[in-house]
Amino acid sequence: MDLNLDKYKYKYQVRVRNFEVDSLGIVHNAIYLEYCETARFEYIRELGFKFLPGSVIDDGIRIMVKRNEINYYHPARIDELIDVYTRISYIKNSSYCFEHVLINPETNIVYCDNKSIQVNLNLNNNRPERIADKYRKLIIDFEGKNIEIINT
Amino acid sequence: MDLNLDKYKYKYQVRVRNFEVDSLGIVHNAIYLEYCETARFEYIRELGFKFLPGSVIDDGIRIMVKRNEINYYHPARIDELIDVYTRISYIKNSSYCFEHVLINPETNIVYCDNKSIQVNLNLNNNRPERIADKYRKLIIDFEGKNIEIINT
Amino acid sequence: MDLNLDKYKYKYQVRVRNFEVDSLGIVHNAIYLEYCETARFEYIRELGFKFLPGSVIDDGIRIMVKRNEINYYHPARIDELIDVYTRISYIKNSSYCFEHVLINPETNIVYCDNKSIQVNLNLNNNRPERIADKYRKLIIDFEGKNIEIINT
Amino acid sequence: MDLNLDKYKYKYQVRVRNFEVDSLGIVHNAIYLEYCETARFEYIRELGFKFLPGSVIDDGIRIMVKRNEINYYHPARIDELIDVYTRISYIKNSSYCFEHVLINPETNIVYCDNKSIQVNLNLNNNRPERIADKYRKLIIDFEGKNIEIINT
Repeated sequence: MDLNLDKYKYKYQVRVRNFEVDSLGIVHNAIYLEYCETARFEYIRELGFKFLPGSVIDDGIRIMVKRNEINYYHPARIDELIDVYTRISYIKNSSYCFEHVLINPETNIVYCDNKSIQVNLNLNNNRPERIADKYRKLIIDFEGKNIEIINT
Repeated sequence: MDLNLDKYKYKYQVRVRNFEVDSLGIVHNAIYLEYCETARFEYIRELGFKFLPGSVIDDGIRIMVKRNEINYYHPARIDELIDVYTRISYIKNSSYCFEHVLINPETNIVYCDNKSIQVNLNLNNNRPERIADKYRKLIIDFEGKNIEIINT
Repeated sequence: MDLNLDKYKYKYQVRVRNFEVDSLGIVHNAIYLEYCETARFEYIRELGFKFLPGSVIDDGIRIMVKRNEINYYHPARIDELIDVYTRISYIKNSSYCFEHVLINPETNIVYCDNKSIQVNLNLNNNRPERIADKYRKLIIDFEGKNIEIINT
Repeated sequence: MDLNLDKYKYKYQVRVRNFEVDSLGIVHNAIYLEYCETARFEYIRELGFKFLPGSVIDDGIRIMVKRNEINYYHPARIDELIDVYTRISYIKNSSYCFEHVLINPETNIVYCDNKSIQVNLNLNNNRPERIADKYRKLIIDFEGKNIEIINT
């Protein structure tokens, strides 16, 4: 995980809601994955894609989460603001990797980080499929020199 | 709402989980609707129906919630057991009404009650449609004299 | 429920997220209660109150939901925007009533409405307690002629 | 992750509920963490501990999640049963590691696996603290030869 925030060109803000905490009064460990996913959807929307029921992105692109790694550093509490720094760190043939750092914008406390590997699946056979060039280009153009392009 | 438990022939038990409470440390008000719905699914399974992705019940029956009324009497907390007493109080042409009373099995404290009106929708035009006789009969046979049959 | 939107002085917008739908591909019936509650928190923040862990509002005011009524008119789907129109329709000694209408801002489709009765509880004995005058005044001033003040 | 199921002495079963799927009709990636946590709570209960509001386990032990790794292999759908195989693979001074494999009991399809590192925090200063001997012993006795004891 790269915690150098200069590499993150996209940021999405959430506020901790009453029902997102657990019995310790802190944001439940699964909820951070919701925050990160919401940021990913907004990132993808920013790139110009629409979401449709039954497939995550238009043109029949269906992205699924393959792996999540999440480290918890500091618990968030009700009403706190969280900036979800979001970037795609690498892109391969049929997969890419989102990295997120979740930070309090007022105190700069790091709540957690998340590395989330996504894979593009063919709608018919559910097998990994090369990410369409149109979509690859949008990602690579947006991330610029910070994205690693891995040819496999 | 009928709080006379003798009328309830079905009961489903849940246990409050860590992430179902809110910042007051009590079960969040929306979560009780999840408990009630889970009890409804198990009730319907008990009657012999299967659930399929994309339609709630087999044979293309698609039941949707039309209205919920819920009264909160006593807050539930982590790890407490809740018996979700469940019955269908009336059946009309295309709709029926579930009634739930949520009770602690050890202390008999009533947490809340929920009246949930469900409507059967035609899969093609989304309009209310008469509930299939096979399904009506199973419900009426199960509930016996306690169900009100309303011909509209 | 008053569906006359002119009476609603506060509006909060949400967007349906990927994980808020159910197996029918529509927003789950319990999730609308989360939308309404989030709007209530923002309404209260707008009035100048802060939220603290362990008590919903500062000065030790602890508001709990006593009853929810919700009618579902049209299902919302992933990525749709929802304006949550929000007002307090009446205030009594220790309770008040929020009314919400959830509308698509582009099509004006009404998704659902929600009436949510809240009660102010004493932190020590959990009994209903008169809502503090400072807080009453803020609500009544904000709602103006549209709020009903019920002396009990 | 050890996928050898012989090492897993504890198993907890859940059934996918209507509201746990996302817009693709499959269980949302964050929900599996809820399943795993629920299994962990039942595992700990099996060992003889009680859960109290405000602290996860009695005697003031407060366990927090430090890191989650989760690999998704096959999507689960509404109504499917999931066996959550659960074990503690190692225990250190103030932390231990839960490993989970989520399997369909009928088809043996592996849905996902999860490695979840937990840390014991002192209630007063929030610093990692040696796990109490009474609690260590119960874990080590239960896991037997399959747990790795790491002295740090």
